[in-house]
Amino acid sequence: MAIASLEAQTDLPFEVYDRVVTEPTEASWRDAIAWARQQDCSHFLAVGGGSVIDTAKAANLFTVYKDADLFDFINTPVGKGLPIEKALRPLIAIPTTAGTGSETTGTAILDITSMNFKTGIANRAMKPVLGIVDTLNTRSCPKELHISAGLDVLFHSLESYTAIPYTERTPRPANPILRPAYQGSNPVADIFSLWALRATVKNLPRVAKDQGDKQAMQQMLLASSFAGIGFGNAGVHLCHGISYPISGLNKTGPKWKHPGYAVDHPIIPHGVTVALSGPAVFQFTAPSAPSRHREALAIFRNTSPTDASITSIPDSEIGAHLFETIAQFLDGLGVPRGLKAVGYTNADIPKLVQGTLPQRRVLDLAPGIGDVAGEDGHEHLTKIIEMSMEY
Amino acid sequence: MAIASLEAQTDLPFEVYDRVVTEPTEASWRDAIAWARQQDCSHFLAVGGGSVIDTAKAANLFTVYKDADLFDFINTPVGKGLPIEKALRPLIAIPTTAGTGSETTGTAILDITSMNFKTGIANRAMKPVLGIVDTLNTRSCPKELHISAGLDVLFHSLESYTAIPYTERTPRPANPILRPAYQGSNPVADIFSLWALRATVKNLPRVAKDQGDKQAMQQMLLASSFAGIGFGNAGVHLCHGISYPISGLNKTGPKWKHPGYAVDHPIIPHGVTVALSGPAVFQFTAPSAPSRHREALAIFRNTSPTDASITSIPDSEIGAHLFETIAQFLDGLGVPRGLKAVGYTNADIPKLVQGTLPQRRVLDLAPGIGDVAGEDGHEHLTKIIEMSMEY
Repeated sequence: MAIASLEAQTDLPFEVYDRVVTEPTEASWRDAIAWARQQDCSHFLAVGGGSVIDTAKAANLFTVYKDADLFDFINTPVGKGLPIEKALRPLIAIPTTAGTGSETTGTAILDITSMNFKTGIANRAMKPVLGIVDTLNTRSCPKELHISAGLDVLFHSLESYTAIPYTERTPRPANPILRPAYQGSNPVADIFSLWALRATVKNLPRVAKDQGDKQAMQQMLLASSFAGIGFGNAGVHLCHGISYPISGLNKTGPKWKHPGYAVDHPIIPHGVTVALSGPAVFQFTAPSAPSRHREALAIFRNTSPTDASITSIPDSEIGAHLFETIAQFLDGLGVPRGLKAVGYTNADIPKLVQGTLPQRRVLDLAPGIGDVAGEDGHEHLTKIIEMSMEY
Repeated sequence: MAIASLEAQTDLPFEVYDRVVTEPTEASWRDAIAWARQQDCSHFLAVGGGSVIDTAKAANLFTVYKDADLFDFINTPVGKGLPIEKALRPLIAIPTTAGTGSETTGTAILDITSMNFKTGIANRAMKPVLGIVDTLNTRSCPKELHISAGLDVLFHSLESYTAIPYTERTPRPANPILRPAYQGSNPVADIFSLWALRATVKNLPRVAKDQGDKQAMQQMLLASSFAGIGFGNAGVHLCHGISYPISGLNKTGPKWKHPGYAVDHPIIPHGVTVALSGPAVFQFTAPSAPSRHREALAIFRNTSPTDASITSIPDSEIGAHLFETIAQFLDGLGVPRGLKAVGYTNADIPKLVQGTLPQRRVLDLAPGIGDVAGEDGHEHLTKIIEMSMEY
């Protein structure tokens, strides 16, 4: 349909790149970048899920910076994290999954195959100039894709709502204009994140049950964009940080091939990798901000935070309740119950921790880690990943 | 403080215009425009409430359109409502009241003294490029100003949440890009409007009670900006439309001088003029969208829309409950109980109706009027204004 629309214009030459891979890698990015540099396109149009939109962002960036190396802009400490000072070309994004929210963010994620984890580039300069968010585009998703994408929305919203507040995030920039793309939870991101959390808890189970439920699919696509605005400004933290090695180690480790994904290589879909540590992560972060976690608990239990069933829980027990509630929610969607269920073993724990530690961009926003001086998170991550093995 | 900050820059010449009047008029706009045209400033900085920010928007517009007449851009049918095709100069807005939300919108309102009502210009081109929203700036407001400004926030959010949905608004533009600034209620505006409504119901009574309540003042200023984003995209309807003649006719009619306003002319502050018809308006609009009005009712009653005390009310009675609840809320803030309380009499009703009818920009968004073919609203407005005389 997008191609037909472009062809209908008489004076609009265009070229199609269709070699994006699901869960992009260094190699797939390099291929797209080489192609884009050769075409030297004036504009980009990305039609797809996060893999497609993120690849288009990278292609755009490295077309403008035509001599730069991939690692020049990748987040530190994996890459150099150089600032993006040139204006990129206009990118229009049309999401076809209700998950990534990539049409609203300056984030692009890839698998650094040589290091067995994912990381990315996060910079406002990469934000698409326009997102065309149309529910008709998610109609053809299979059930498993709806679920995995929806889990991404769920944790974008939960993580950004519970990220270290922007007023406490360190290092503090000298001027607000110097804040990074991920600046910590803040009042504007909060309203988007909370809205998306409510919408996802309500509608994702409906979509999982009935892929003909148009109203629920519409709400999920909106939640995907809204969660994108939330996390694109506030940031994500532990579930996303831990997901990157879960995803990266799969190809040499468990080689899990998730049902519903028609690909010829092992894959744990991004949303599932994020969800696997969900219960343990929010048990860990709850003491940092009990009232926010209490609100989240109330949303999962479809009640008000002022309801007696919620107010009667002491602060010290909110985390345990949230663990159980999130685990039940995931189970209801058929998500594997922990890392063992996708083939990881206790022997993999140190490797998963090692693959999470370089994710400073997100660990720095994790309450209990990023806000504790001298804390690299090694011990906490080990415990969270241990607790995520089975439940 | 803003002046000291400008003076601290060695190479930043600036001129101060300080003749803005509270509730601007044609004459005060013309004075500001003439001054701005003479200065031909490259940038504008507005520090004040809605009167100041709106006047700066007008000064900016007519500096760029240096030969245009005031009525060229004023909303039809009062003015010509010409499109704004040139880029305006950068305007930075620093609100000092928690009410207008003008720092987020392309709207500017003035009193057309010759016609005894207010109207304005609403165009995205007039939006400030930056708003600096700092709670320290509302500290010095007197109680009555906090209340009147807060009432504006309350009705921005209630009206934009209940405006005709953007999918039903007529005339439908051929392309979404052609939608007017006020495009009807929509999912993005909704989340801002609902957040602002909740925050206002909770915090405005606190500020009214204690002008040292910093947390409540901070929430009100944020609510002001958020409601601005909501109504700046969705639009307002009846309370604002009816407020314009209430305000305009005051100088020749009741000559009400509101306590707390140190001005040498009669004034009913904008927020109060908006609130006076509030109970009757939402009783009238409730049948158009009972579930949205039910949500609003639940917010005023500090409960969930799914609580039995709310679900037990039949759709047909939501309006009457909302009338009573809004009236009580206003009474708790010391707002005059109806138009008679500020000096209007039944003999003024036809003039108030006549002054509302030309406000097509907002009447077209009023459910029960804008969405009924051939309905000019005359009869409904008469009834709403009658019901607003005393309660």
